[in-house]
Amino acid sequence: MIEKKHINSFEDMLGKENVYSDKAHLIAYSYDATRTRFEPDAVVFPRDEEDVCRILLYCSNHKIVVIPRGAGSGFTGGALPVSGGITLAMEKHMNKILEIDEKNMVAVVQPGVINKDLQNAVEKLGLFYPPDPASEEYSTLGGNVSENAGGMRAAKYGITKDYVMALRAVRASGEIIRAGKRTIKDVAGYNVAGLLTASEGTLAVITEITLKLISKPKYTKAYMGIFSSVEDAMNAVFKSLSSGANPVAMEFMDSLVVKALKEKLDIELPDGAGALLIGDVDGNVPQEIEFQLETLKNSFKENGAQDFIVSKDQKQRDELWYARKNASPSITIYGSKKLNEDISVPRSMLPVALKKIYAIGEKYGFKVPCFGHAGDGNIHVNVMVDGSNEKELEEGHKAIEEIFKMVVELGGTLSGEHGIGLSKAPFMDIAFTHAEMELFRDIKKALDPNNILNPAKMGL
Amino acid sequence: MIEKKHINSFEDMLGKENVYSDKAHLIAYSYDATRTRFEPDAVVFPRDEEDVCRILLYCSNHKIVVIPRGAGSGFTGGALPVSGGITLAMEKHMNKILEIDEKNMVAVVQPGVINKDLQNAVEKLGLFYPPDPASEEYSTLGGNVSENAGGMRAAKYGITKDYVMALRAVRASGEIIRAGKRTIKDVAGYNVAGLLTASEGTLAVITEITLKLISKPKYTKAYMGIFSSVEDAMNAVFKSLSSGANPVAMEFMDSLVVKALKEKLDIELPDGAGALLIGDVDGNVPQEIEFQLETLKNSFKENGAQDFIVSKDQKQRDELWYARKNASPSITIYGSKKLNEDISVPRSMLPVALKKIYAIGEKYGFKVPCFGHAGDGNIHVNVMVDGSNEKELEEGHKAIEEIFKMVVELGGTLSGEHGIGLSKAPFMDIAFTHAEMELFRDIKKALDPNNILNPAKMGL
Repeated sequence: MIEKKHINSFEDMLGKENVYSDKAHLIAYSYDATRTRFEPDAVVFPRDEEDVCRILLYCSNHKIVVIPRGAGSGFTGGALPVSGGITLAMEKHMNKILEIDEKNMVAVVQPGVINKDLQNAVEKLGLFYPPDPASEEYSTLGGNVSENAGGMRAAKYGITKDYVMALRAVRASGEIIRAGKRTIKDVAGYNVAGLLTASEGTLAVITEITLKLISKPKYTKAYMGIFSSVEDAMNAVFKSLSSGANPVAMEFMDSLVVKALKEKLDIELPDGAGALLIGDVDGNVPQEIEFQLETLKNSFKENGAQDFIVSKDQKQRDELWYARKNASPSITIYGSKKLNEDISVPRSMLPVALKKIYAIGEKYGFKVPCFGHAGDGNIHVNVMVDGSNEKELEEGHKAIEEIFKMVVELGGTLSGEHGIGLSKAPFMDIAFTHAEMELFRDIKKALDPNNILNPAKMGL
Repeated sequence: MIEKKHINSFEDMLGKENVYSDKAHLIAYSYDATRTRFEPDAVVFPRDEEDVCRILLYCSNHKIVVIPRGAGSGFTGGALPVSGGITLAMEKHMNKILEIDEKNMVAVVQPGVINKDLQNAVEKLGLFYPPDPASEEYSTLGGNVSENAGGMRAAKYGITKDYVMALRAVRASGEIIRAGKRTIKDVAGYNVAGLLTASEGTLAVITEITLKLISKPKYTKAYMGIFSSVEDAMNAVFKSLSSGANPVAMEFMDSLVVKALKEKLDIELPDGAGALLIGDVDGNVPQEIEFQLETLKNSFKENGAQDFIVSKDQKQRDELWYARKNASPSITIYGSKKLNEDISVPRSMLPVALKKIYAIGEKYGFKVPCFGHAGDGNIHVNVMVDGSNEKELEEGHKAIEEIFKMVVELGGTLSGEHGIGLSKAPFMDIAFTHAEMELFRDIKKALDPNNILNPAKMGL
């Protein structure tokens, strides 16, 4: 617990209304989407970058831990104050879209802006911000940058890091850093914007983000490929993409998910559908759409697709997507708690990865429904357990560890888009050598020598 | 000068044939494209990554400086041994394309592979590696990654960093680091691959590069827009791009370049052409090409274009590009030496940037022909001086410094694609604050505590 005099100092600095230290608020800020609980000693709301500088300088002088926080919607505990300290919450004041520069196709935002609010604002101008994490309705762009959020559209349009052109950030010492420019090319100095992206708030506090925008394609259609087996669908993923198709998204649902959708939500899906691939294609001209659909259809059929459906209008597009959007809530029929991980493998490894995941599930006696962003190799693996059964939980975690080991052996990664934070930290030594972990620690120490910025995350 | 015993050690380690220490070879390796000269104490040729580890461990123990080198074609002295030490030359052995993984659309190469050799190899398979620095015929991918090379196709396809999926590298200590994966999404650990890209060989020695490939578009056409003034052309650049055009390239030549092309190379260009924009558009279907050309044409005409020409076949496409390809050699009519810089500004700032560049040239009495990658805001600025006149050279450098200051004021960068190296190092404090330079030094020190990797570069 930090001393009361520090709380007073923060109140003097920011006004009483911008410092919470009462129990109710500390509890409210002790959660994220992992549902693990760690209470901060105080929650402070900077009004601007200058406040961030003052707070960090003070915390640096007094060795007070600082946890930057956006919406607190992270899946790995990145914004949880595991060892107390202050939560630096961006949602109250630092939540403005500062500029949409149509001439240069760039947006400048504060870290507390909700992803979807930016998407909506730029789309009104015919522009497009593609990164679309499933949390887009509530997660902040500061959080998205800190975790390098992905989403469904990554298959064609890439992930958050592909859109970060420049950052302003404050170092632990309170000094302001500008990194990157509003230019496509900039090779002066180290790529600090690239380093801060995905650093989970452990290296600096991001105060302003300059994001690349692109033109919004005029035409979009949805497709659905219906396969009798997961293996066929997984083969179709990498074979269709390497044959020249470039869909916006290629989302996967396995037979357990299909069954859950039918049973729980009464969604009509073909009998014998063992796996589905669904996504959008887009383009500036209708012929580009047709080219994409034709390429997909041919490749899907060559890989055993039973059927290939294309949306005729927006209503039908929504219907096709309805199944995918409900994949996550539907699978609770298999267990009261899902241990969900977001592994990512080279796409050609998807068929063998899925096979091994199911085998591991079978070995431990758990159902493991899988769905997600197959088009970029990123699959959400859900080990379904009885959450009230300690032994099952423990066994479930063992299964997860086996899955991670297998994924790394296939050239994959512990996390496609959720980050490491707390919950994946115990698995870092599966993926990284001692020398690689030392390199991460060297970087952390160089940027935050007193270890006050979001400590004890990422296994560091 | 390093001691003779170290040369002997390297010979024992690598074989005599892989260590040069005779005067002729040291001179041969003392140059790059800046034509400045610094002789290394020895040139060593690692046969593989293990050799790189052994060399670095030895150099770390004996505090011997190591300068990684690809083709030595850099424009800013990045591969020059300014304070002696050994040149670690990748061209002799570590020059193999290790794998073209068609299934995952990825290439794995050693750092000494020539850019164009990779392009050719993947295009045979219908794949595409877009980054195309002007040096593509001879520069290496290790150099491209170290300098984060750009090129003409950056307007649509981005730059080297957008294609680096993973790296293997050896730290100063001799330890191997793997960074990144053969996956689109990977958010485990710090973005070390992003940090090493553009770090000019100062943080680690890159030993293997995994690059993203894309599908090669089926159709390509070239266009040329003819404008009476530079201002019209510069307005057309950002207005056409923000109106939805997405050409592969949008290259610019100013009236001085146009004049030089006519006078020196006898190229037929319209009378009164004060500026040209030239580029390619591409697509999977002919209608996409038509959409792009129509969008460009309309926007160019709205911004004062006198004419808009489209190539009918490959022959005509080559003719349109002939002018651009000869821009650089043609301008020697304005002075025996060009002080060429590669500034980059937000595209909407191009009209005012060019105006100010010419005004600075006029103030000093120099012709300043400009050309380059306007579509991404990156312009090659050539201050033409009499190379044998010391005073002119000095004045020319003053003009360059004024240009840099102006560019930074407009939100631009010292270097769009050539890097900082030695030649731009004196200007770093124009672009970066003390705190930002300290951050760069903190990173350098963390990764290379003995400062043996390419020291005294980037103003560090």
